This record gives sequence, C-alpha cells and structure tokens, in this order.
Amino acid sequence: MLNPRLIRQMDFIFEIEKLKTVYRQNAIINENRHENSAEHSWHIALMAFILEEYSGEKIDICKVLKMLLIHDLVEIYTGDTFLYNTSERENIKKSEKKAAQKIFAFLPEDQAEEYLHVWEEFESKQTKEAMYADVLDNLQPILNHYFTNNCNIKDKKLLKSQIIDKKKFINEFSEDLWGFAKSIIDKSVKEGLYLEG
Amino acid sequence: MLNPRLIRQMDFIFEIEKLKTVYRQNAIINENRHENSAEHSWHIALMAFILEEYSGEKIDICKVLKMLLIHDLVEIYTGDTFLYNTSERENIKKSEKKAAQKIFAFLPEDQAEEYLHVWEEFESKQTKEAMYADVLDNLQPILNHYFTNNCNIKDKKLLKSQIIDKKKFINEFSEDLWGFAKSIIDKSVKEGLYLEG
Repeated sequence: MLNPRLIRQMDFIFEIEKLKTVYRQNAIINENRHENSAEHSWHIALMAFILEEYSGEKIDICKVLKMLLIHDLVEIYTGDTFLYNTSERENIKKSEKKAAQKIFAFLPEDQAEEYLHVWEEFESKQTKEAMYADVLDNLQPILNHYFTNNCNIKDKKLLKSQIIDKKKFINEFSEDLWGFAKSIIDKSVKEGLYLEG
Repeated sequence: MLNPRLIRQMDFIFEIEKLKTVYRQNAIINENRHENSAEHSWHIALMAFILEEYSGEKIDICKVLKMLLIHDLVEIYTGDTFLYNTSERENIKKSEKKAAQKIFAFLPEDQAEEYLHVWEEFESKQTKEAMYADVLDNLQPILNHYFTNNCNIKDKKLLKSQIIDKKKFINEFSEDLWGFAKSIIDKSVKEGLYLEG
C-alpha cells in the first residue's frame, strides 16, 4: 500500500511540471523561444549560492533557496506578468494569492501551510532572505537581456530610466551588485536593447 | 570600478545560461519539445525540499540543493547522455570531468574548487547527500514520462526490466519512494510507455 502522504506530495510534484510551460519576456541564447519560469527559477537559485557573500553574513540561504524555487509557481494559474506593465501587476495580486493557495493545497497540510508562508514572506519583501531573493529575481532579467541580445525586449522600447527606476533598490542591498547591474544596463543601451532617456 | 571577483562570478552566471539549450529525453506537458537540463534541475531541487523527510534525519539539505543545481552543468560541453545508452555513458566520464573543470574555472579560485568538489561528491554517490541527490535525479524522469505521456520514450521501446534494473537502488534509500516509483512504472507499462518484459 502506498504512503498517502507521499501520494499528495507527488501530486504536487506532478502539478508543478506545468511551470515549464509558463513563458516570460526573457530569451534563450541562440534559440528562437522565450525563457520559461522553471529555467528562470533554476538560474536564480544557483545565483543565490554563487553570490551569497553579497547578502551579508547572517542569512538563511536554505530559506532563500526555498523561496526562489517556489516564487513563480503561482504563474501556473495566472501566467507571467511583465514587470513594466504596472497596472496589470497591481491587479494581479489577488489572483496570485488565490493561485498560491491552490498550488500549495496539493501538499499535505503542514507543508501547504509552510510553503504558503514562504511564498508570502517572499512577496512581502521584508526579511533579509526575501530581500536577497527579490534582488536576484530582478538582477537575472538584466543579465539575460544583455547576454542573449534579446530582440523581444528591443521591441518593448523600454527607456533606460524605466529600468533604473525598477531596479535601483538593488543598491540598498549591495553596491557591488548594483554597480555590475548598472554597467550591464549601460552596455545594453549601447546595443540598442533599451532606449536612452 | 567593478569588483573583479564579481566579474568572474558573473561570467559563470552568463555561461550557465547555455544549460537551457541542453535537451533531454524527458518531455514537456502539452508541448512538442523536450525538457532541458535547467528545467530538470529546478524540478529535482524543489523535489529535494518536498521529499526531505524520506532522506533520514541528519542530511545537509543545503549541500543536496547545491549538488542538484550544478549536477548537469557539464552537459553544456558534453550534451546529455541517455541513461540506457550504457556504453556511451561509460565513455563520457573523462569528458565530463574535463567539462566540470572548464565550467567551474569561470568562478574565482576558491569557488571553483568548492564546486568541483561538490560535483565530484555527487558523481561518487558515496555520501548521504549524494545518494539522495542521485535518487531524485533518477526518480524525476519516471514521473515525467508518465505525467507527460512521453511519446519520445515510447519510441525507445524500453523494457520494464531495464527500468527496474536502473532504478531499483532507490529502494535502498527509501522503500516509500521506491514503492511509489514502481507503481508509476506499472502504470506506464499499461499506457504503453515501456514494454512488458
């Protein structure tokens, strides 16, 4: 007889397969397709380990990893919302909360509660762990646009000032990371990915 | 002036973008494309947290996560080798070691050394953390084949006994996980994904 708790955990593991079909504005190098949220989540999770030294000393890195691996699961039901579409991003908050309740309800109750809290902590951006996760989530698209020479982002005709405005909070977390991000934004403007202004 | 250590770390973060273009035998639900190794790595990393209770008590889960997030990076240079192609998998070991040295050399020396050791620990399958990582890496494809009704795997005409032979070590780690895996293998045979025998 199968362990009924494990069956619920596996139902969740099956359901999250669908994150691999949620596409974002990021691109894939040398391929004509968009990045999906599962690939993005993998990338920032590994970045969390590599860049851990910029997060200060007393950070619970395991908690950061948990946040990053689950932070986009709500998109299975809501889809990805473009960062620069400000009005849509305001409206989607309620749907995302419902989506979080729906996806974590696949898990046994104790885990459902735990992961809903982890997701809420990420969303609230108040703890050191949530702030580091948010920095990584916002840093990776800048790197991706530049490295993949993202034609799709060119079409969006984003202004450099729009990017700076959304991303400058990184400086409060780490001057090193923000210094690097700014250098990539400048190079991206030169490449025509964003517009001067 | 940019932090030179951070520049190296970012070079690594750029280079690993390429894992999103390494395709495997797994499928994507409702889409006509193969799963790539970045998506796979995300999936098993989150599985590691969800199924942690089956790994026994004293496991360093953060180490397991690190292993899972980097375990396939060598494929950026070697490509993915199908588990059931036994001769090719034997031959590829040397190339994989070289590939590991190449990818981690992007990092500052201390991190290059650390991550090469983590990768070697995963490959050796001797520690509790490496064994858990190996179990997850072997469990996910079985789940994926079944959940996506993977036509590509049907074409491989794999025998149930071949699958059992490669995966039965899971039982030594956790009877619960193996019990579930076996139930999925049986269902997959009924669906015609693997052949009886």
